[in-house]
Amino acid sequence: MTTGDISKRKAAEAAIAEVTNGMLVGLGTGSTAAFAISGLGRRIAEEGLRIKAAGTSLATETAARAVGIPFLAFDDLASVDLCIDGADEIDPLFRAIKGGGGAMLREKVVASAATRMICIVDASKPVETLARPLPIEVLPFARSYVAGAVRSLGGEPIVRPGPSDQDNLLMDCDFGPIADPACLARALDAVPGLLGHGLFLSEIDALYIGDRSGVERRERHQKP
Amino acid sequence: MTTGDISKRKAAEAAIAEVTNGMLVGLGTGSTAAFAISGLGRRIAEEGLRIKAAGTSLATETAARAVGIPFLAFDDLASVDLCIDGADEIDPLFRAIKGGGGAMLREKVVASAATRMICIVDASKPVETLARPLPIEVLPFARSYVAGAVRSLGGEPIVRPGPSDQDNLLMDCDFGPIADPACLARALDAVPGLLGHGLFLSEIDALYIGDRSGVERRERHQKP
Repeated sequence: MTTGDISKRKAAEAAIAEVTNGMLVGLGTGSTAAFAISGLGRRIAEEGLRIKAAGTSLATETAARAVGIPFLAFDDLASVDLCIDGADEIDPLFRAIKGGGGAMLREKVVASAATRMICIVDASKPVETLARPLPIEVLPFARSYVAGAVRSLGGEPIVRPGPSDQDNLLMDCDFGPIADPACLARALDAVPGLLGHGLFLSEIDALYIGDRSGVERRERHQKP
Repeated sequence: MTTGDISKRKAAEAAIAEVTNGMLVGLGTGSTAAFAISGLGRRIAEEGLRIKAAGTSLATETAARAVGIPFLAFDDLASVDLCIDGADEIDPLFRAIKGGGGAMLREKVVASAATRMICIVDASKPVETLARPLPIEVLPFARSYVAGAVRSLGGEPIVRPGPSDQDNLLMDCDFGPIADPACLARALDAVPGLLGHGLFLSEIDALYIGDRSGVERRERHQKP
């Protein structure tokens, strides 16, 4: 297990302490979700915790069922109580970039549907200014048009080799340091054929940062 | 041919008079595109007009090739010179609702990529206030969440029976008369999993309204 994984597991363990009986928990995809699921499985076995979960991928569903968490189809749900997921970069105002794994479209739906979202990261993820290339999901029909629109907004798009979970294209768009994420998000939201992007500006309510020695908890005090 | 079709054909004939040699023309789907294509075919045969076209569907491509219009794959194009398409409702500020046929996602990409867009309608389409149910395209995974988001914005969504061209869901959302289309568009743009909607607020540059006696041309004087 890498140092990052150890840190993430510590943060996940702290986050799942927020889960209480009767909750419907939303889960993302990838290592963060995996740590949350194994921790929830232990609480079910040790404390008899009763919860349900929904999530963004078959892998998450399989892992949840394996530890005894009843798993619901997300498309039947308008909301979940708590979402636990990671981020690739997060700034002091809890604005994050996600989508390194390409699943940000579904992950943003689950995060937006959550009454509370806890973001779990290791100490390498918090930054002063969001700057990593921003993943976007693009209708294949609109490939050239959207690439042009990204360039007109100051970004340089690079197409990823494989398709998204929805069989669309994924592009990583290098905007350099993003001075005004809200302005960029609105501009991207308005581009037809650009189906989703990795800027999570309002979804995250709490940040758990793990390292070898422990977990730092930060709470967002104001919704934007 | 219905009165609406006769009117639409007259308007389409007037609109294609704007097409000149060398232009790349964007075409939508449905009866409006069909009238434009047959008119362009006649100009090619009679005047030797040289153009290329791109469009939103295989039906449009087949019809265009049949009358001798070279057809390009739209996904290779960042822009087109002129787009000719219809609308289901249009207000005095050239703000329209499209998507009765369910193809508004691709149609908005082509309209946005166009240097100039001419909207062709019969006299039943202009209204003082946009009010018909607004079509939206929805990621199936986000079905219940997006329906809840639409309701929280004051709309009542009804799911259409069939899938969209992209195998997503289509919903018609009744908001009643839409007092502030720009505000509604921004709110819908920001809902994750809502992949596109039928509000065309800035794309249309000119409006051609046909009836039995002739065609009225209106030009948008200011972009919003």
